[in-house]
Amino acid sequence: MDATANGLHSNGAAPAVAGGTQGKPIRCKAAVAHGPGEPLVIEEVEVAPPARMEVRVKVLFTSICHTDLSAWKGENELQRKFPRILGHEAAGVVESVGEGVKDLAPGDHVIPIFNGECGECAYCQSSKTNLCKTYRVNAFKSTMVTNDGTRFAIVDRSSGARRSVYHFLNTSTFAEYTVLDSACTVKINAKAPLEKMSLLSCGVSTGVGAAWNTANVSKGSTVAIFGLGAIGLAVAEGARLRGASRIIGVDINPEKFSKGKEMGITDFVNSKACGKPVHEVIMEMTDGGVDYSFECTGILDVLREAFVSTHDGWGLTVVLGIHPTPRMLPLHPMELFDGRRITGCVFGDFKGKSQLPEIVDKCIQGEININFDGFITHEMPFADINKAFQLLEEGKSLRCLLHV
Amino acid sequence: MDATANGLHSNGAAPAVAGGTQGKPIRCKAAVAHGPGEPLVIEEVEVAPPARMEVRVKVLFTSICHTDLSAWKGENELQRKFPRILGHEAAGVVESVGEGVKDLAPGDHVIPIFNGECGECAYCQSSKTNLCKTYRVNAFKSTMVTNDGTRFAIVDRSSGARRSVYHFLNTSTFAEYTVLDSACTVKINAKAPLEKMSLLSCGVSTGVGAAWNTANVSKGSTVAIFGLGAIGLAVAEGARLRGASRIIGVDINPEKFSKGKEMGITDFVNSKACGKPVHEVIMEMTDGGVDYSFECTGILDVLREAFVSTHDGWGLTVVLGIHPTPRMLPLHPMELFDGRRITGCVFGDFKGKSQLPEIVDKCIQGEININFDGFITHEMPFADINKAFQLLEEGKSLRCLLHV
Repeated sequence: MDATANGLHSNGAAPAVAGGTQGKPIRCKAAVAHGPGEPLVIEEVEVAPPARMEVRVKVLFTSICHTDLSAWKGENELQRKFPRILGHEAAGVVESVGEGVKDLAPGDHVIPIFNGECGECAYCQSSKTNLCKTYRVNAFKSTMVTNDGTRFAIVDRSSGARRSVYHFLNTSTFAEYTVLDSACTVKINAKAPLEKMSLLSCGVSTGVGAAWNTANVSKGSTVAIFGLGAIGLAVAEGARLRGASRIIGVDINPEKFSKGKEMGITDFVNSKACGKPVHEVIMEMTDGGVDYSFECTGILDVLREAFVSTHDGWGLTVVLGIHPTPRMLPLHPMELFDGRRITGCVFGDFKGKSQLPEIVDKCIQGEININFDGFITHEMPFADINKAFQLLEEGKSLRCLLHV
Repeated sequence: MDATANGLHSNGAAPAVAGGTQGKPIRCKAAVAHGPGEPLVIEEVEVAPPARMEVRVKVLFTSICHTDLSAWKGENELQRKFPRILGHEAAGVVESVGEGVKDLAPGDHVIPIFNGECGECAYCQSSKTNLCKTYRVNAFKSTMVTNDGTRFAIVDRSSGARRSVYHFLNTSTFAEYTVLDSACTVKINAKAPLEKMSLLSCGVSTGVGAAWNTANVSKGSTVAIFGLGAIGLAVAEGARLRGASRIIGVDINPEKFSKGKEMGITDFVNSKACGKPVHEVIMEMTDGGVDYSFECTGILDVLREAFVSTHDGWGLTVVLGIHPTPRMLPLHPMELFDGRRITGCVFGDFKGKSQLPEIVDKCIQGEININFDGFITHEMPFADINKAFQLLEEGKSLRCLLHV
């Protein structure tokens, strides 16, 4: 099967990279968040050249994920750092590289990863984790590792006064140019269509990887997914590609069920209308519970339902939702003896730099048929980013692809 | 290496089995618990012949575990069933078998298992669990599966009045004869010394199996064990046999440290005297935490210390303690994203009937060198069972072997 048959075709011409900018600051547009919940302001920022082990990337496509929403609203006080450039799902082209970067060069097609991989620390050397010692996901980090500085500034043209603009999630992709640690930059096959690859930067990798790497969903098994946003549907994609016999989608919004069906979900439970606890419904549907459940809502009571919806003896619950609650896990220690297990999952347990290039190659070759198009419900120009935020917040979009 | 060199030598003569008793009730001595915390009464009971798929076993050795203590005290109201014959760690010889039993015959050397294996249900067919649908451990069960009856009775010799005596943990080994489900009876090599094999019936299998099967402790890894009773020391045995580089024992009782050292523990932390949280001490000792921790105390705050004593990214905590608390797990859902995992463990994740005979054979052949003798700190006649209870309760014994 060729790339076209797989729906994976590049738009042809290689994206242009600004020439002669290496080593110099670049002035470009960015969507800057100035305060919690305030509309983003598209304005000019100065992007410094990449420091040691950094890369400057021209962002071509970016999309919005719930983590951006949460940081924008300042839901967690400790995370409030403004002004800031949010965004972590994107695809682009390397403009220039800093000292010491060996595996990336100007013109390379890349996707940023918020959960980096230095390749050298004890964590990166271990097959048991994808959390890098230095570049792992860190929602509290707002500066670069090298010299703890920022690479963005708002410069007052008349006075020359500079104001630093903070980074976000190792990525800050809501800008025409961004600076990334090379550990957070994955080079992918130039034949892959960057507009779709943007989704591998977070949502699709996280959900598909949760099914493949974290849960290791097996052929013929049963799956329940709690929360049918982009992550939940990406889990469904992963489960479908592994040959799960039944993929049960749970949500309070029945509008999500038609999209879910299109993405391979076989059964639906409307948890607001089913008249009894969801786990009882699922137990009945599956003769004792599903083999795997995935919690994609960030709601603790849903997490408990997901846990008790699995089959005793071997059920595994994978937690993907971000839980801002101060409450502890609503599980009793003795429940662990029923053979149900629970585990968290970051970035689908993919080691981004080691594993994603091969996934991209397999997508191009048609060996893996991820339905990227199914996730892109809207497309609009970068200037309309506030509209895109609104769509996601209202649950009307899965992914709105912004053309930068 | 021969069996003698391994310290595993049978005491020679095959134990005698009462003849001509098949199909008839047997009158024999048992230690009967009549009420919570009341001294056990050694008295005559009538033991019915085995029903369909049951086995009657002459108990030769039995020992006491904390689960017996807990049931004796009636710590959990729902578990209070008296009169009752406790005991679940033992070894003996089959006296007779009920209808349908094909894999056991009179004279077979056996150990009872409280966590049975029917071999046929979906659970037994799954490689992911050792919980049998019907015969799994169940602390609330007090009768036999077949006809929901008891096989023990106290019979008033003068009036002929009969009073049923309840079963415990599928086993009830504090009696000269007991009736077991065949699913809870493991035939072992007759060359193995029964007095030592008694320990495989619960404590040693649970601890060693937690290290081998549940955690899969790897060579060179680091381990912390919270609670140095028999289970904790059996975990240490399992970790030592797997080649763990460091086995840290944690207890509030420094008297347990000399025994621990003898059993292969390399480092000790007295959690009452270390001046800061145990996990901080362990983090410092191991440069970031142990690879595996084992919670063998049943205390929830210790469980949390065990969890946070493991290395982020890949640490695994295995819960072995019984937690009677109404409190939920003291872990925050976001802590799951640090890559630490937690799991319960029943009977060392051994499928008793399928796997223990091979373990016994390997012990005899010297391929596995479990230090059974290290666990047997006391031996006494069955009549002294109350003294044995007291020794365990006071923390003075690991295992007191009763000669029945």
